[in-house]
Amino acid sequence: MLYILDYAGVVVFAATGALAASRKQLDIIGFLFFAALTGVGGGTLRDLVLGRTPVFWVIDPGYVLACIATGIIVFFAAHLVEWRYRLLLWLDAIGLAAYSVMGAAIGLASTGSAPIAIVTGILTATCGGILRDILADEPSVLLRSEVYISAALAGACTFTFLEVLGVPTVASSAAGFAVAFALRGGAIRKG
Amino acid sequence: MLYILDYAGVVVFAATGALAASRKQLDIIGFLFFAALTGVGGGTLRDLVLGRTPVFWVIDPGYVLACIATGIIVFFAAHLVEWRYRLLLWLDAIGLAAYSVMGAAIGLASTGSAPIAIVTGILTATCGGILRDILADEPSVLLRSEVYISAALAGACTFTFLEVLGVPTVASSAAGFAVAFALRGGAIRKG
Amino acid sequence: MLYILDYAGVVVFAATGALAASRKQLDIIGFLFFAALTGVGGGTLRDLVLGRTPVFWVIDPGYVLACIATGIIVFFAAHLVEWRYRLLLWLDAIGLAAYSVMGAAIGLASTGSAPIAIVTGILTATCGGILRDILADEPSVLLRSEVYISAALAGACTFTFLEVLGVPTVASSAAGFAVAFALRGGAIRKG
Repeated sequence: MLYILDYAGVVVFAATGALAASRKQLDIIGFLFFAALTGVGGGTLRDLVLGRTPVFWVIDPGYVLACIATGIIVFFAAHLVEWRYRLLLWLDAIGLAAYSVMGAAIGLASTGSAPIAIVTGILTATCGGILRDILADEPSVLLRSEVYISAALAGACTFTFLEVLGVPTVASSAAGFAVAFALRGGAIRKG
Repeated sequence: MLYILDYAGVVVFAATGALAASRKQLDIIGFLFFAALTGVGGGTLRDLVLGRTPVFWVIDPGYVLACIATGIIVFFAAHLVEWRYRLLLWLDAIGLAAYSVMGAAIGLASTGSAPIAIVTGILTATCGGILRDILADEPSVLLRSEVYISAALAGACTFTFLEVLGVPTVASSAAGFAVAFALRGGAIRKG
Repeated sequence: MLYILDYAGVVVFAATGALAASRKQLDIIGFLFFAALTGVGGGTLRDLVLGRTPVFWVIDPGYVLACIATGIIVFFAAHLVEWRYRLLLWLDAIGLAAYSVMGAAIGLASTGSAPIAIVTGILTATCGGILRDILADEPSVLLRSEVYISAALAGACTFTFLEVLGVPTVASSAAGFAVAFALRGGAIRKG
């Protein structure tokens, strides 16, 4: 379950990065750069602060290849989609939910501390998107919406509390994902 | 003395982060995010480049809790203050002075090299504020004022030179703090 | 050869950082800050993700001193130059080419993986300039030109492939540098 969430987070964030590159009319290398940056950015920062180096994508280059594949697909498909910005927002919501759980899981496994797990959950979930918006000079997802960080916080807390209570990981991660996605998705629909 | 400067730096930078969130009319989670980011940002980068991982707030979550407490207080008190931006500048000056000494002290203890101590002093003192301004889309404190980095440099140099000369740490850190705060405070008063 | 490319990369990137500070009319400390940030920024990120900590300039402060010397020279010489922005672009191209090779060489030596070497080559070559543009609030070199990341990619790939094929390092690094510089230089001349 965690493994699926991990690759799902990388791929959907990579897709949002490539969509941002598409909005800026970059060339294919620009697509791949933004895909990789957004896909692995949050997890890289998480690994750095936890002292888990070399970081995950240096140990397993499969993550980088997944970002590149995603970037290529988006490069050839993006012009087919009228509503690129809305799609970016919804994919970002899936990535946010997946990474809030993944980040908390790794923080918890690595330190055993629930507060740190919640912080690394938020960090992992939000930093890829923040980097993407800063580098693409887009309005920051951080200032745009009231429930971006809140959704990551809710997902990370839900997962961490259930996990500490001894709930099976598959259930606690599904619950964390659902809570974060519901909150963020509700905000996108409203606004 | 160093311990007091350390928590003082975290708390006042956290307060400046929360004030930036207040100027952007974010919700309470946004306040906490900016408080934590600004409070521990400079020290996180310092720990990363020195190879002191996991970084300080992963080892002692008390720093994160101090940021959260500060963020909550600012959230409920900020609307009482007319001159939020001026307050942010002055608190930022205190944080800058405290962290220029703290960063140099940790760099010196960690490497024994005076030039590196001065660089980590500047890094620790300035990076929290720089991150805050970039993410909050404020005019960067870096470009706004002529004596921002200079004040951090003066504080870090004063502390490091006195320390290398064998002056007791309490005196050298007080002197470093005073020099940095006087320079930056003078610049804020003038303009 | 690698050693020359390394210092060449630091010095020319430091010069571009100082030129950016000149365009923003900062004081001399601002020049030194931007020189150091741009000169060692890309390599710092490379070392962090590879887990090579403390990072290179903490181990050898000579890099920081080279940035400071460059910053001082640019501070006193920059007003003599009419076409600061064009000079910045060309120096940036040299730094980009040198670092795409250096970053790939260190990534390859550190992990033995060709894909990771290419990624760290791009990372090292582009991140100093990206940081400079974000902090100086300049139009990002990333969005400005179509062949910025592509040139770094081409240089890193050329070096890595030749190196894996067993070509002597002096030849493979010269070839990587030439390819990256030709691509980026061509783009600057055209546009």
